[in-house]
Amino acid sequence: MKIYFPSLPPKPELKKILYTVIFKTDTPAGKNFDIALLVTIVFSVLLAMLESVRSLQNFRNLFRILEWIITVLFTIEYVLRIYCSPNKRKYIFSFYGIIDLLAILPSFLGILFSTTRYLSIVRSLRLLRIFRIFKLSHFVKESDHLADSLKRSFSKILLFSYFIIIMVTILGSIMYMVEGNVNPSFSNIPESIYWAIVTITTVGYGDITPITFTGQLISSMVMLLGYSIIAVPSGIFTAEMIRPLRKKNIICDNCGNKEHDKDAKYCKQCGASLPDTKNKQKT
Amino acid sequence: MKIYFPSLPPKPELKKILYTVIFKTDTPAGKNFDIALLVTIVFSVLLAMLESVRSLQNFRNLFRILEWIITVLFTIEYVLRIYCSPNKRKYIFSFYGIIDLLAILPSFLGILFSTTRYLSIVRSLRLLRIFRIFKLSHFVKESDHLADSLKRSFSKILLFSYFIIIMVTILGSIMYMVEGNVNPSFSNIPESIYWAIVTITTVGYGDITPITFTGQLISSMVMLLGYSIIAVPSGIFTAEMIRPLRKKNIICDNCGNKEHDKDAKYCKQCGASLPDTKNKQKT
Amino acid sequence: MKIYFPSLPPKPELKKILYTVIFKTDTPAGKNFDIALLVTIVFSVLLAMLESVRSLQNFRNLFRILEWIITVLFTIEYVLRIYCSPNKRKYIFSFYGIIDLLAILPSFLGILFSTTRYLSIVRSLRLLRIFRIFKLSHFVKESDHLADSLKRSFSKILLFSYFIIIMVTILGSIMYMVEGNVNPSFSNIPESIYWAIVTITTVGYGDITPITFTGQLISSMVMLLGYSIIAVPSGIFTAEMIRPLRKKNIICDNCGNKEHDKDAKYCKQCGASLPDTKNKQKT
Amino acid sequence: MKIYFPSLPPKPELKKILYTVIFKTDTPAGKNFDIALLVTIVFSVLLAMLESVRSLQNFRNLFRILEWIITVLFTIEYVLRIYCSPNKRKYIFSFYGIIDLLAILPSFLGILFSTTRYLSIVRSLRLLRIFRIFKLSHFVKESDHLADSLKRSFSKILLFSYFIIIMVTILGSIMYMVEGNVNPSFSNIPESIYWAIVTITTVGYGDITPITFTGQLISSMVMLLGYSIIAVPSGIFTAEMIRPLRKKNIICDNCGNKEHDKDAKYCKQCGASLPDTKNKQKT
Repeated sequence: MKIYFPSLPPKPELKKILYTVIFKTDTPAGKNFDIALLVTIVFSVLLAMLESVRSLQNFRNLFRILEWIITVLFTIEYVLRIYCSPNKRKYIFSFYGIIDLLAILPSFLGILFSTTRYLSIVRSLRLLRIFRIFKLSHFVKESDHLADSLKRSFSKILLFSYFIIIMVTILGSIMYMVEGNVNPSFSNIPESIYWAIVTITTVGYGDITPITFTGQLISSMVMLLGYSIIAVPSGIFTAEMIRPLRKKNIICDNCGNKEHDKDAKYCKQCGASLPDTKNKQKT
Repeated sequence: MKIYFPSLPPKPELKKILYTVIFKTDTPAGKNFDIALLVTIVFSVLLAMLESVRSLQNFRNLFRILEWIITVLFTIEYVLRIYCSPNKRKYIFSFYGIIDLLAILPSFLGILFSTTRYLSIVRSLRLLRIFRIFKLSHFVKESDHLADSLKRSFSKILLFSYFIIIMVTILGSIMYMVEGNVNPSFSNIPESIYWAIVTITTVGYGDITPITFTGQLISSMVMLLGYSIIAVPSGIFTAEMIRPLRKKNIICDNCGNKEHDKDAKYCKQCGASLPDTKNKQKT
Repeated sequence: MKIYFPSLPPKPELKKILYTVIFKTDTPAGKNFDIALLVTIVFSVLLAMLESVRSLQNFRNLFRILEWIITVLFTIEYVLRIYCSPNKRKYIFSFYGIIDLLAILPSFLGILFSTTRYLSIVRSLRLLRIFRIFKLSHFVKESDHLADSLKRSFSKILLFSYFIIIMVTILGSIMYMVEGNVNPSFSNIPESIYWAIVTITTVGYGDITPITFTGQLISSMVMLLGYSIIAVPSGIFTAEMIRPLRKKNIICDNCGNKEHDKDAKYCKQCGASLPDTKNKQKT
Repeated sequence: MKIYFPSLPPKPELKKILYTVIFKTDTPAGKNFDIALLVTIVFSVLLAMLESVRSLQNFRNLFRILEWIITVLFTIEYVLRIYCSPNKRKYIFSFYGIIDLLAILPSFLGILFSTTRYLSIVRSLRLLRIFRIFKLSHFVKESDHLADSLKRSFSKILLFSYFIIIMVTILGSIMYMVEGNVNPSFSNIPESIYWAIVTITTVGYGDITPITFTGQLISSMVMLLGYSIIAVPSGIFTAEMIRPLRKKNIICDNCGNKEHDKDAKYCKQCGASLPDTKNKQKT
């Protein structure tokens, strides 16, 4: 953990150096700081896991002390991040700012409510910071493409989930009527809807299974349905993944339309000749 | 629930106002009515669920009373819909008209046959009406595209299901012959076919599992088969999802280019105006 | 079951009429015959299923008698098919010819070996004949496209299965070493390989599950692997499904190359001008 | 097993002949050698499997003797491979060289540590050599295409797995907090994370299942999530599978058309000969 610790410079200088170390991943100091951070996060998540294991109960005190040390470190880091941030408000309400807060909050809340302590594991979300370290690498571009495709397919998949939820509600209720009287597993409609979700998603725990002939017949149809419609999110997402391979960002000088085929010469919207794109070949 | 309740106007006026409130989702009154409706539906579905939970049996009478109130409200709404509809016949036999009827029927049938009462949960289908509320939004277009792709891939997926059903019939029978004598789970052919469906769809409840070596060998092959052919509905649907992103058969009068986007107005090859295609919309 | 039964004509005539009725699905007589056949097959398959159900044991004799009647009918049909077929050898060794034989064989073998009797259910394969009835319809074309894509992706999926089998062999053996001593479910390597297949295909019966920490860790990796590589058959098949939407059957007059893009004007192999395809637009 | 055994020729000759037999799969002698090798590998893997089966314990000594014979044969083969290899270093550290060593190592290590003996099953990896036998066939090209697509989608799928792992860590911890106190199955966080992986990958063993209402609600959401994001690896891989079917960046010197198939020699737009692309092969 090679963290720069220069002899304290005048105050405005200190702020600047801190900013470089904490926020600038493209400097050696910043990179080292971020790697040290990641190692600490992984270590901290492992601690929370081990603490929950009964056979290691003897070491529980050790785990707690270590966790508190890490929590204090993270708290100091959080305060420093706010301190040296040029735009404090922006950092606090940014994606990473909220995660940084969530990473320390559960430990403090854990003093009051013992169970919430394990929520400290949400600090594993801080591991997403790994993308900042490899900021300039090939990885981010791919991650961007993935995220982009996911975003565009999100509303369609949400729509699909809405249908699924209506469907499992009805299927679960039907199964409750069919199996409810003879099968103690189908004890009520929410339980039966849970069964329908377990079945249609092809998870199939087997904790609730039909025992009547009609129940098994309906189940079979639910399974075949689930097996077929698994195609829907696949189709939606694949279509989005492929799209950027097809359309290219040619902007029409005349009407501003941006969606053109790779080989288009004239704007399909206004008929104007498209700018030559031989130089911007790489997409 | 801000529903317009103007002081009763002369009769033909009343009918018109009712029509606006109930059917016109693009007016403020209509939108409010529809949102109130959706909230009532969700509430009603939750009621039916809670009624089935044994630990809440004390409140059962309350649930029933509330459900009857909702059923009466839905019945009034259904009568009003017929009353104010300009084309009564068309509404009654429309998709939503049938669902509206199905939403109230089970409660009345429930007086005669106690179990059918839970069928009132089919009123959750009324939640599909949500698409009418967001009628003008981006969502409907996506929903249309999805529905369109599903419709076109439907016959192919049906064909695929037909093969699957023939296959599981044979596989189930073979497993019955192999396991039937030693494994009480494979007690008859329908049960074994049920097992084959559970396995080939990768649901895998585990309520029926092979115990002989031959049985496990056959199962393994069934699993690998199911794991591979899950690709089939995915492939079918993805192909359909991608198609509309490709092209529509518009032929350029000038240069004969036939590959144009659905929304293209000018030929991308020569810039000529494309013929109007509003009449040949259906592909 | 309106089957034509004309008063016996002179022999060569009889053969011709029989041929029309049995083989020609596009004549009314042929269509009726085929529909009657399908109904009989479904009925026969249902019989075999019911016969295996213990609670219906009282009717077993009835089921057997009915099944024998159907077997005799199928045998007569098979003999007649050979008799009236213009090319007997070709029919006997054709796909449907073999299925027709398989449909009657198990019943006769069942006299000798009681268990094989249930194999009579392979006559459900005769249901594939349904495609002949709807021969001229839209369905066959789609079925052809599906079958074509499956055929082309078959060798790739086989290759993939070969890898999977090598993988599960190794994974199963590793799990046997890890779990074998403490977990009676992993009693030997074949059993452990069976577990690996159940897991990697995401079927997950749960009849064999890891109990050690290392075992669960390895299982988790196997699951994530299986969850990821399910993409492989999907990708292979989807690519094949999409292909015909792209390539078009233009044959180069010069070199015979058949793989050209939809919009190709010159052969990519020899540079010769491609024949005009405006008239063969529909693929 | 027709292996060439010529009467010993002078030493340098022997080396050459050995090289031909062992490494050259395109000669008859080489092909026969490789087929004999594959048969031996399959036999050896089966032996290791059978040895682990308790009911065949009586034959265990036989199995061990046979396995040692095969191990000795493989060792001789390995030594000969090194001996006759023109570039010994290159062979030893090649993919197949390492596998060949791994195939004999566990047996020798098994003398010291009894459990590692079963690792000898890694010799099933040698079955990958099958691709060398069918080197010139159609299969390799398809295998190459598959491997290529896998390689390119690997980093994206790794990224996806990274997200999944962060997600299951958090989901598992939440479930531990929800179910931990009432459900002995969720005994600690690692166990709960294992449950989350079993659920999100739709494997669904059912060895650990939620019993509280909140637990089942969260599970349902995890299942729907897993059912939806199975689309992600599919989309990634399908996009890669389709890409090579599309185009390669060859620019026509004559008309500038850039969309050509991988194997195109002449421009499809103007018929001009395309520039040689053998040097820019890697995309």
